[in-house]
Amino acid sequence: MSDVVIGADIGGTMIKWVVTTASQEPLGQGRVQTAPADPQRSLRRLRKDIAAALPQAPDVFAAVGVACAGIVSARTGWLGRSPNLPGWEDTALGQLVSDAFAGVPAVVANDVNAALYGEYRYGAGQGCRNLIMIALGTGVGGGVLVEGRLVTGAADGAGEIGHMILDPEGPTCTCGNRGCLEAYAGSVALLQKARQLAVDDAKASTDFVGLVRERGERLSTSDLSQLARNGDDTARELFAGAGLRLGQAVANCVNLLDPDRVIIGGGVAAAGDLILEPCRRYVPTAVLSEGSRQVPIVPAAKGSFAAALGVAALAQHRGELA
Amino acid sequence: MSDVVIGADIGGTMIKWVVTTASQEPLGQGRVQTAPADPQRSLRRLRKDIAAALPQAPDVFAAVGVACAGIVSARTGWLGRSPNLPGWEDTALGQLVSDAFAGVPAVVANDVNAALYGEYRYGAGQGCRNLIMIALGTGVGGGVLVEGRLVTGAADGAGEIGHMILDPEGPTCTCGNRGCLEAYAGSVALLQKARQLAVDDAKASTDFVGLVRERGERLSTSDLSQLARNGDDTARELFAGAGLRLGQAVANCVNLLDPDRVIIGGGVAAAGDLILEPCRRYVPTAVLSEGSRQVPIVPAAKGSFAAALGVAALAQHRGELA
Repeated sequence: MSDVVIGADIGGTMIKWVVTTASQEPLGQGRVQTAPADPQRSLRRLRKDIAAALPQAPDVFAAVGVACAGIVSARTGWLGRSPNLPGWEDTALGQLVSDAFAGVPAVVANDVNAALYGEYRYGAGQGCRNLIMIALGTGVGGGVLVEGRLVTGAADGAGEIGHMILDPEGPTCTCGNRGCLEAYAGSVALLQKARQLAVDDAKASTDFVGLVRERGERLSTSDLSQLARNGDDTARELFAGAGLRLGQAVANCVNLLDPDRVIIGGGVAAAGDLILEPCRRYVPTAVLSEGSRQVPIVPAAKGSFAAALGVAALAQHRGELA
Repeated sequence: MSDVVIGADIGGTMIKWVVTTASQEPLGQGRVQTAPADPQRSLRRLRKDIAAALPQAPDVFAAVGVACAGIVSARTGWLGRSPNLPGWEDTALGQLVSDAFAGVPAVVANDVNAALYGEYRYGAGQGCRNLIMIALGTGVGGGVLVEGRLVTGAADGAGEIGHMILDPEGPTCTCGNRGCLEAYAGSVALLQKARQLAVDDAKASTDFVGLVRERGERLSTSDLSQLARNGDDTARELFAGAGLRLGQAVANCVNLLDPDRVIIGGGVAAAGDLILEPCRRYVPTAVLSEGSRQVPIVPAAKGSFAAALGVAALAQHRGELA
């Protein structure tokens, strides 16, 4: 049998895939559209896309790893709640994947866990054994690696750092609670806050108000970080506020687990030091153990293919999900 | 060589010790006074006390485990900051212990980590592989067990759950920050809050105000829990408020790690359901993953000898500190 594996990150619109050898050499990567309502059709597309892009790929792979957002059980291969993939929810995803690829072993993982594993093997976490990752996207996800193994939890519920409550009187979160990290540092929350500042805050800069009005529904965190990089105070304060709350969450994680490194990924993290520097300044003030205060807080390095790479590595190293 | 080990929990006033066989049969236990300024003298006392109490104990033990409060490195045996043991701080504690017991292997651990390990092996955590412990004492300590191994951290700073910041505008903590769990649920914080209620709160019950005045400096959390058990509303609300904040901290830990069980120990936990029930009611409202919401939140079972038992078990199972 070949030693070549597939790693595929199933998003709501696109599947990103990589094919790697046992020595973790990448043979190729690509993207193909997801059929959000039809997992079988999506997996057939994935198989055809790989065959077309990599004629040298084997007919039968050693294993296939699949990552997606949602509650994923590495033990059973079951995908539970997964709002972006309505047709995939509550399915035996591992079995579907195995069936779609000639019965080979399938590994399934949550997408942020997979991205953390990708960063651990190839990116910002290389050389570490204990990592925390926080992914600042539309929502905020997370992952925990202890002694080189992903912590998935007793009921596959680990890594929900986005719903750490930082102030029970804080802003309302999509989950219904108040003051979750996601309600401060997810892109939905940041955009909402930006729109609110543009309307309510008399001190908001003219440029800031102008940008928010002009972009309307198309306003993005990269529009805002662009403005902040140009020196706009209102935009800078917006990211600094999110960075401080990110710092509180990071410090809480460090006080609990004292990892080797903390990795910040996701689209909002593209704001870079606008959000990371306030976080880095805050963390040492809130970490009790002196030796742990200078924990490196670093941006993710493997970009949007981190989860595909990570789940390919998990498919190679089956059994490394704690 | 014998297979008998010692486990000793070095407190600021007393050393609690147990002697166990490899099969973890307890041969005996006892207490002897600590010399807080003189570790060598304390260890000689410990040795004599065991010899007197257990004439059948071997001359040379298989290993000696020692637990104490503070920053302890299981890897190097070094004891760093340890406010209750001024003469023991910044010493090669593992070496001192080994020297005091005829050169046998020594294992050192933080006291809450050791108590967690004791609960895992013999108490409220039996049968689980993933546990979180929160010890509500004068301060608030914690410990994390992942896949049967204690998480000590990159710089021995893990487990500081007491300094999880639950509200950056909250009450001032002994560490200088605001809104730490310890500032809501440690006994110092609870007693301070009780005294404040007795003076400032016009709605405080007559019994409550009377108790606080009568007990003065000797007021204890067990005085207050007694009053609460007798149905006093002010005392009940005091514990319920601490229980809610404990719930916020537990939920944050569960969202991050999704353990099999959460164990609550320490003197304040003797208030039992007065503090645990509000915590248990809050946690399911704040845990994102549906399958993890009903995580059992249980009182510690091994009482004040948990740390001695735990560090004896660690001495038997050397290498189980992650």
